[in-house]
Amino acid sequence: MAPPFPRGEYAARLAKTRGRMQEAGLDLLVVSSPDNMNYLCGYDAWSFYVPQALLVPAADEEPVWVGRGMDSVSARLTTYLPDRNILSYADDYVENPGKHPMEQVAHVIRELRWDRGRIGYEGDAYFFAARWLQVLEKGLPEARFVDAYLLVNWVRTVKSAAEIEMLRQAARIVEHTMWVAIDAVEVGRRQCDAAARISFSQIEGTPAFGGASPANPPSILSGENSATPHAAWGDEPFLADTATCLELSGCRHRYHSAMSRTVYLGKPPQKMLDVAKATGEGLEAALETVRPGILCEDVDAAWKTTIGRYGLEKPSRIGYSIGLNYPPNWADHTASLRAGDKTALEPNMTFHLMLGMWMDGWGFEMSETFRVTETGSESLTRFPRQLFVKS
Amino acid sequence: MAPPFPRGEYAARLAKTRGRMQEAGLDLLVVSSPDNMNYLCGYDAWSFYVPQALLVPAADEEPVWVGRGMDSVSARLTTYLPDRNILSYADDYVENPGKHPMEQVAHVIRELRWDRGRIGYEGDAYFFAARWLQVLEKGLPEARFVDAYLLVNWVRTVKSAAEIEMLRQAARIVEHTMWVAIDAVEVGRRQCDAAARISFSQIEGTPAFGGASPANPPSILSGENSATPHAAWGDEPFLADTATCLELSGCRHRYHSAMSRTVYLGKPPQKMLDVAKATGEGLEAALETVRPGILCEDVDAAWKTTIGRYGLEKPSRIGYSIGLNYPPNWADHTASLRAGDKTALEPNMTFHLMLGMWMDGWGFEMSETFRVTETGSESLTRFPRQLFVKS
Repeated sequence: MAPPFPRGEYAARLAKTRGRMQEAGLDLLVVSSPDNMNYLCGYDAWSFYVPQALLVPAADEEPVWVGRGMDSVSARLTTYLPDRNILSYADDYVENPGKHPMEQVAHVIRELRWDRGRIGYEGDAYFFAARWLQVLEKGLPEARFVDAYLLVNWVRTVKSAAEIEMLRQAARIVEHTMWVAIDAVEVGRRQCDAAARISFSQIEGTPAFGGASPANPPSILSGENSATPHAAWGDEPFLADTATCLELSGCRHRYHSAMSRTVYLGKPPQKMLDVAKATGEGLEAALETVRPGILCEDVDAAWKTTIGRYGLEKPSRIGYSIGLNYPPNWADHTASLRAGDKTALEPNMTFHLMLGMWMDGWGFEMSETFRVTETGSESLTRFPRQLFVKS
Repeated sequence: MAPPFPRGEYAARLAKTRGRMQEAGLDLLVVSSPDNMNYLCGYDAWSFYVPQALLVPAADEEPVWVGRGMDSVSARLTTYLPDRNILSYADDYVENPGKHPMEQVAHVIRELRWDRGRIGYEGDAYFFAARWLQVLEKGLPEARFVDAYLLVNWVRTVKSAAEIEMLRQAARIVEHTMWVAIDAVEVGRRQCDAAARISFSQIEGTPAFGGASPANPPSILSGENSATPHAAWGDEPFLADTATCLELSGCRHRYHSAMSRTVYLGKPPQKMLDVAKATGEGLEAALETVRPGILCEDVDAAWKTTIGRYGLEKPSRIGYSIGLNYPPNWADHTASLRAGDKTALEPNMTFHLMLGMWMDGWGFEMSETFRVTETGSESLTRFPRQLFVKS
């Protein structure tokens, strides 16, 4: 249960984070996103439903983990941190209207004498609620608080060689899982029974390396639900003459490679064949555009030009940076492939190129996870680029 | 894909919520937790990774859903709301440093002329980040903001007959799944392979009703991990002469019934047999105490007295209100079974009585989900109360 990366990898991540902290003029960063905590110290436990944080000082001192007492054992098991840097709060701080765990985090910051400078927090993260900031501000009156949302996420956006290897393993899992999924979509079978087979495959992984529960559950959009990307599946059976969109991922040590494909049960209508053809060409055009120095919006522009020839448009972004994450989402939340995003591509950025065509009452999806290489792009997920037709 | 409860159920929930809004002097409640949005209007989609909200006015008008454009289709498919009450923001508001979806929520509130009174928000919810409040405050300068965290959760804490039926179905799923899990824990098998079988069973459900991905993934704590409650499982095999703690749930229309049991591979040491015996007696003592009017802390006291006779103690709470939820957690976040919690039990409150004994380097878990009845308690999850020994 040691961290999955060598010690030097974490040191490099911390150094890059400190570089960005210096640019932002921060003396301390309160990291509360489970993804960023994992990234910086290896911490991996399903404990992010209660407040916890990694305190990262700008000065050359080891970060300090603060969390619930029962989870400090996980911190000792999964991080490289020395025991003295693992601090915890008593259990009655959990979900107690009279107390708040952030009071304890503020207390630790004061004890460490880190309370007098500029303190960054992750202001738009899932796991930094409005009240947390209020409690920290009250407990640390000498500090100046600065919203440093995405500071660590931007460091994460360019992956190391070891991270790319994790994404490759995750890609092997999702490739296998997609075959399982296409096989599982059958007229008359309940959608939940297909979801069960898909989850089994995602978690089992391969004989060489196991999988995990991804940050998003299997997305199975069948029939009328294929017109919208995030609908829940249920007990309903798959019906003849309908499309089912499958957006799945493999997950390895919390690194995700995602992929979508669409299955049609019966003889697909011409409009679906047309959209499938246009989407496939658009996918290739987008990938061919990718190389270092190109902007995110350029990739979207190539896609738009191609599908425009077919009279199609897509109002939503066509992809986003992907990698290390926990529920509810596998995205890095930094670069998006869309008009207006001026992020320049760099080698070893990784994206989920997600071409979801949600039409009026039906839909079609095709997507891949790619890596920016020194000269172009490499699809990490390799799978036939087609509409799958089952009769 | 209509809402899973009849229209009158939602009307009753809304009326109770409005009663509490009146007590709190609120003119409007901004509900952003996916659990509370689901509870009040049926909305069910994996879209809570971007900002969204249900606006609930104190006045007798229908609530308004505001979310991302692509998710408005899910709102039409899964809620009872009329189309005119489903409003959305453009896709470039998503993860865009120059814009924020809460600007659009503020805009809608202004357009509806709901911007001049006291506006409640869910200040400590997973899905109400610090920046959301800042953006709302800036966009609604005439409003007075009031932290109304848990207002809807407290309404949810007493379940309706229809909700109890959902929890019963979830209980059938977790009972079946626990047998699958006990069977899956075998010397030499990878932990991820057991997790795959468990997830399959959770999602497949029963022939009569399907399951879902629960709010928490399977908790499988084996060997040294059994000393801490939230550790992740991985590729490691189950080892002979170790305990494995299993904390699982069934999930039906997002309603959870949870249950824990422990498996020992080999001949269990006497100390584990002793803890198992004490825990089983403590569980029965706790349940026998339950009846309307008893306080949450009384249940904990009965448990403490019983295990104290064995020289044992448990520093953390022994349970919490459970029901409708999304990741990362299945708890209602209201009442806890622990010293100091003066919540009086009422009929149709439901709790996960979670007896996790995390010791130095090992652990033992046994738990059940129970309902408070008119005269006592009823275990929703029925399963042999014992340590499971496999040789």
